[in-house]
Amino acid sequence: MRNFIGIDIGGTTIIFALLKGKKIVKTKKINTPKSKKGLIKVLIKNIKELKGNLKIKGIGIAVAGVLDKEKEKILNSPNLKYLNNFLLAEVLRKKLRLKVTMENDANCFALGEAILGVGRDKKIVFGITLGSGVGGGIVIDSEIYQGAFGGAGEIGHTTIKFDGIKCKCGNFGCFEEYCGKRFFQRKKVSSKELAKRAEKGDKRAKEIFKEYGGYLGIGIANIVNILEPDIIVIGGGIAKAQKHFLEEAKKEAKKRIISPLSKRNLQVKPAKLGEKASVIGLVYLLNQF
Amino acid sequence: MRNFIGIDIGGTTIIFALLKGKKIVKTKKINTPKSKKGLIKVLIKNIKELKGNLKIKGIGIAVAGVLDKEKEKILNSPNLKYLNNFLLAEVLRKKLRLKVTMENDANCFALGEAILGVGRDKKIVFGITLGSGVGGGIVIDSEIYQGAFGGAGEIGHTTIKFDGIKCKCGNFGCFEEYCGKRFFQRKKVSSKELAKRAEKGDKRAKEIFKEYGGYLGIGIANIVNILEPDIIVIGGGIAKAQKHFLEEAKKEAKKRIISPLSKRNLQVKPAKLGEKASVIGLVYLLNQF
Repeated sequence: MRNFIGIDIGGTTIIFALLKGKKIVKTKKINTPKSKKGLIKVLIKNIKELKGNLKIKGIGIAVAGVLDKEKEKILNSPNLKYLNNFLLAEVLRKKLRLKVTMENDANCFALGEAILGVGRDKKIVFGITLGSGVGGGIVIDSEIYQGAFGGAGEIGHTTIKFDGIKCKCGNFGCFEEYCGKRFFQRKKVSSKELAKRAEKGDKRAKEIFKEYGGYLGIGIANIVNILEPDIIVIGGGIAKAQKHFLEEAKKEAKKRIISPLSKRNLQVKPAKLGEKASVIGLVYLLNQF
Repeated sequence: MRNFIGIDIGGTTIIFALLKGKKIVKTKKINTPKSKKGLIKVLIKNIKELKGNLKIKGIGIAVAGVLDKEKEKILNSPNLKYLNNFLLAEVLRKKLRLKVTMENDANCFALGEAILGVGRDKKIVFGITLGSGVGGGIVIDSEIYQGAFGGAGEIGHTTIKFDGIKCKCGNFGCFEEYCGKRFFQRKKVSSKELAKRAEKGDKRAKEIFKEYGGYLGIGIANIVNILEPDIIVIGGGIAKAQKHFLEEAKKEAKKRIISPLSKRNLQVKPAKLGEKASVIGLVYLLNQF
């Protein structure tokens, strides 16, 4: 059995997983450090701990941000800016003397859900991750669709209101500003806290989720009108509150989708594999090593 | 040699072409009638004229609108509303006793440009048609990418300003309202007339084109952030004025594209095949009959 270590580096948390072949045998979750130095330190420490005396075939890293085509460098990560232009794979390779591969985290998420989650048996799967940022990944026939230069699926930075709120990336009206964590920050409440309030019947909380769902529906319709997938899978931390906004999102999306067939047949579903979806996608990639 | 007739039905004009194998030997251009009855009449009349005594293998129709998966019915054509839910292919088949096939006009445009135009040798081609409406077509490895239900590429109805201008399709802030003919109608001038004024150095005309180019850049960036093609080809009637807005569009797109590799490598070019691009795409499809 070949052993791997899969690491999902998100804007808020990092998940480590020890894999034996296609099986996840151990996981660990920590907060994402605020500096590059801090990140390297916790990566090395946790990899060594997980590895122990095992022989490791390689390490896979899922990371938020646009990577270069050979997946060696993080080119643009608006929510982990200290990683921009950093050769993370090379640094780890040198320090650990192990094979290291990187992939965009939302691509891994979409792949995980396409292979083992709600996207099973679907030809075209679009995965959206709702977290610090909003990520996206496209899987066609069980393979990640990379686009021409390795950067496809970046739904978070599509424009839904060209004169709207200024995004962290510098532009205006990005989808991420309306459906990422900053939406809730502007309302001065976390999605988790808001879900608690909504469950208690708080009217204002329900209204905020309705507004959020409307924005999500706009982004979904944009994906559908361009790419027309069979299914859109919703994941990421904010998706834990999906029951409060997903119906509204579907309603708004249906209004804005132009194809009557897509309106009728498109599926929009919460992810099935939970926060480990990206690591599961990595398992699949690592086993192709 | 097998003969075909190719017909491109746009919101404003219809182009007929007589094809001998892959060669266009005769074309004709007329205005698009305002009613279904009028349309059928001119289609039959012109097909019969073009056909003459020739043996025709089949007819191909490129039409603006979302078609059903088997391309037998026009499901939603915001700029030719009288065609909605109309079985155009079947009606012509019965009246003419000939094989008839339909395809979305922007898909044909993209295919034409991908095979013989500026998209030659490119893997992923996105074609945008700027006319009465704004259409889009995706070609990957020289084949039309249809999406899950045959309706991919509908960039005209993606949202670029969710609380923006009401579109003919009923929604708000569609790309088509900012980059189709209605943009110029709101300015009370045609793109052709405006181009004349801009060429004479009219400052206001140049400003209007700059505004238009900015909107086009937003739509282009949305395509790139999701699908990341190698090239975006710009066609349709309004594209005749491209020298007045294309540079501005590229500038705005570069601002909003998140992948540094795409920012650097993406090509945005005017179509090479002119108004016959869609018919040329049809030629390719018909020869696969």
